Amino acid sequence: MKLRSKILEINPGKPIVFINEKDAKAAKIHPTDLVKLEIGKRAIYGEAAIDNVNIKPGEIGLSGEFLSINISQGELIEVVPAATPESVRYIKKKMKGEKLKKVEIESLIKDIVDRKLRDIEISAFVTALEIHGLDMDETASLTIAMAETGDMLDIDRKPIMDVHSIGGVPGNKTNMIVVPIVAAAGLTIPKTSSRAITSAAGTADVMETLANVTFSLDEIKRIVEKVGGCLVWGGALNLAPADDLTIHVERALSVDPTGLMLASIMSKKYAMGAQYVLIDIPTGKGVKVENLDQARSLAKDFIELGKRLGQYVEVAITYGGQPVGHMVGPALEARELMETLISGKGPGSLVEKATGLAGIILEMGGVAPAGMGKKMAREILESGKAYEKMKEIIEAQAGDPNIKPEDIPIGDKTYTFVAPTSGYITGIDNRAITAIARQAGAPEDKGAGLKLYVKVGEKVKEGDPLFTIYAESETRLDQAIVVARRSEPIKIEGMVLQRIGNI
Amino acid sequence: MKLRSKILEINPGKPIVFINEKDAKAAKIHPTDLVKLEIGKRAIYGEAAIDNVNIKPGEIGLSGEFLSINISQGELIEVVPAATPESVRYIKKKMKGEKLKKVEIESLIKDIVDRKLRDIEISAFVTALEIHGLDMDETASLTIAMAETGDMLDIDRKPIMDVHSIGGVPGNKTNMIVVPIVAAAGLTIPKTSSRAITSAAGTADVMETLANVTFSLDEIKRIVEKVGGCLVWGGALNLAPADDLTIHVERALSVDPTGLMLASIMSKKYAMGAQYVLIDIPTGKGVKVENLDQARSLAKDFIELGKRLGQYVEVAITYGGQPVGHMVGPALEARELMETLISGKGPGSLVEKATGLAGIILEMGGVAPAGMGKKMAREILESGKAYEKMKEIIEAQAGDPNIKPEDIPIGDKTYTFVAPTSGYITGIDNRAITAIARQAGAPEDKGAGLKLYVKVGEKVKEGDPLFTIYAESETRLDQAIVVARRSEPIKIEGMVLQRIGNI
Repeated sequence: MKLRSKILEINPGKPIVFINEKDAKAAKIHPTDLVKLEIGKRAIYGEAAIDNVNIKPGEIGLSGEFLSINISQGELIEVVPAATPESVRYIKKKMKGEKLKKVEIESLIKDIVDRKLRDIEISAFVTALEIHGLDMDETASLTIAMAETGDMLDIDRKPIMDVHSIGGVPGNKTNMIVVPIVAAAGLTIPKTSSRAITSAAGTADVMETLANVTFSLDEIKRIVEKVGGCLVWGGALNLAPADDLTIHVERALSVDPTGLMLASIMSKKYAMGAQYVLIDIPTGKGVKVENLDQARSLAKDFIELGKRLGQYVEVAITYGGQPVGHMVGPALEARELMETLISGKGPGSLVEKATGLAGIILEMGGVAPAGMGKKMAREILESGKAYEKMKEIIEAQAGDPNIKPEDIPIGDKTYTFVAPTSGYITGIDNRAITAIARQAGAPEDKGAGLKLYVKVGEKVKEGDPLFTIYAESETRLDQAIVVARRSEPIKIEGMVLQRIGNI
Repeated sequence: MKLRSKILEINPGKPIVFINEKDAKAAKIHPTDLVKLEIGKRAIYGEAAIDNVNIKPGEIGLSGEFLSINISQGELIEVVPAATPESVRYIKKKMKGEKLKKVEIESLIKDIVDRKLRDIEISAFVTALEIHGLDMDETASLTIAMAETGDMLDIDRKPIMDVHSIGGVPGNKTNMIVVPIVAAAGLTIPKTSSRAITSAAGTADVMETLANVTFSLDEIKRIVEKVGGCLVWGGALNLAPADDLTIHVERALSVDPTGLMLASIMSKKYAMGAQYVLIDIPTGKGVKVENLDQARSLAKDFIELGKRLGQYVEVAITYGGQPVGHMVGPALEARELMETLISGKGPGSLVEKATGLAGIILEMGGVAPAGMGKKMAREILESGKAYEKMKEIIEAQAGDPNIKPEDIPIGDKTYTFVAPTSGYITGIDNRAITAIARQAGAPEDKGAGLKLYVKVGEKVKEGDPLFTIYAESETRLDQAIVVARRSEPIKIEGMVLQRIGNI
């Protein structure tokens, strides 16, 4: 059936094809059916919905998403019910616990990207992976298929380095110090990051307070070829696009099958052309990887997967039991890292981690002799060369290179919690810190977050400040205070944890 | 956020909540997010979509589906992002292979019916069941939860009988003879059926050529209390509504976990108040259950489940290796069964099966002595009492009780295939017969289908007619002929099956 396209400013989060009831009946198309749209030689897919409001017989309504694939208003489109995609058979094969072949995984990922598989099918795939897992052959095939169904960067500089932290530690602005150190040493590091999903600030959110983070791959190529590094948002790029669609399902189910997690991270490094990759696995209470055994097993998987992809991968298992540095939230973290870059020194947890990670990369890239990487990284930081490089990166990303930490606006509504008793700090709860910062408005309100005055092991006296909450509105501040009162994010030795009366 | 409702004549096959971009941003609602609508004391759920076409700030668009839950135009509704439903934890528990408790299954089914679980979550549940299965405790809990979250029939006659055939055999109009025989014997049998999904005609499709099949539960109660039986469409009733939502997912994945299948069938019998249930499991090539071992194992499951539900269940394993009777397709099957009821005799495969099944029910219901049920059923059929009862049922369901078989309109475009060689019929392919009838237009075109002149074991001479295809349009007829040519639905002994030349 030939219908005339009508692009609608509707975004249901997936490609939906709106059809008048009359045409749907004639074409035997029912709501939620997968339909195939043929436009010239292209075939694209969407889910059917009956719509008698916007769509007259002879028309077909397309959600805004379709615009990105170059369909114009009033184009004549052949609309037919789509057959069950072949790849559903491979999902069923995985349900039976069987191993998938390379071609089968390629077909699955292609069908996900082509939107031939809907939430139903993707969810069945994710669930089967959560239950039966993927072996290393399958994970490698999945990683390459995910990368190759998206755009890939080809930078004319070698070697290409990359670094990735497995999330979960609040205040982890480390890689924004690692990148300028590495680039200042003459290596190339085209770093893409995500925005916060469940945390208080993703690297892209922090960088956005200093410069633009949304660029095309061509622009990134130009930036990186000029200054040696970048700190951009990966979400704007068409890198491993299947990943977004599987992550959407994983999040709804709060599952994260290891094979998919490995492929999700490494497919993007592969697409960015990275040859040397350092993976940072923070380990500790309240982060994704809670103990060393898990961390070591995951490290082996990353290294093994790297081998199959032709990448050299090293893993740093780092301490993730409390926040990195003192600041949490986009603007507050930006202030802390700029202060560190400008002065060449900062909180131990931040400087030690950043120079440690950067040092490993300098050794991997062959610019520092074995065992000398961290020392070299520290020199680059302390000499101001890392700051100079950061200014170049900020300028290349259309920010103000001369921005001062105090110029970065932070929330003006504040509240400070003080120590209810004297003693040593015995614990800072990552999850509670994140919850408070998010309740205060982070990451959407860039000035929201919190500042810690103490870290684990330090001594406080009754009445000493523990942390200040920053918010952009009184409402948000009040809500964050409630969360902070309820969650006791900082524990002091000797503190009465709970008082139980006569019940 | 309070928004004013605007019911849209849009049917996306699931509850979708359309929000203007501005409001969505303010309420932190993203496309596909689960949102909660509070209307007075009620809370209902839907998936969010951004819509700047139909929806202005301050408004909320609701898909037509919401009308059925009594929301009116312009009503003020509190709209908030919904938290992840508790029952997602039980889906994850089942992913780990653990056994679910009764309260956990109840929570899952309630959340499915309340639309708190979307395709993503339901698909994960179905996939976990396909992989790990359900034991009999879980299946019983599931069955009861499915029934009790929907409407239930309470008929003032006892005992209540029911019969159900597990689909797959073309031409299976058997239960439309069983029901009038059983009701004529004084038992009560409120039979609900489905429409064809993958077959050429469901019982509801066939009955619809003779009478109305869409009634409310109250109307069904009146009909059954008056004439002792009915043949109605179950899909119009709110029986075990969770079932439709899981079946939608099962169909997309073409999986059918045993526990869900048992619950799907038995929850509806339970909701209809059935105390004695006969399950017919046709067994043979090209039907759902292909061998006797599978059939016996399934039979045990049905009987055991019945015990937990307080129902007495018997199972008949029947021959399903070829079509029942000679006619396939709604109107053609209606003609065949009315001829059989009127004359008291008909094709052996139909009469033997119908009186056999009816006989078991007569014995279960205590109106025939053990071993005498089939004889009694045959007498009721041959005496014309079954036909008289069928006339009462047709009249009670607003049809013409005096309708003659030849009055039922069938397709006037026909094509007859003849035997290419002489010999015995060695096989009739159920799947091919269904495919031909569907291609000819069944079940939507009620007059479409086919008539078989031969059954397995019969002798034919070259040129004898094998079957005639009926269609309502030339196009459909031509398409069905192509399918028939390609699939060779009827095999004759001695026939050259394939001819291979010099390659």
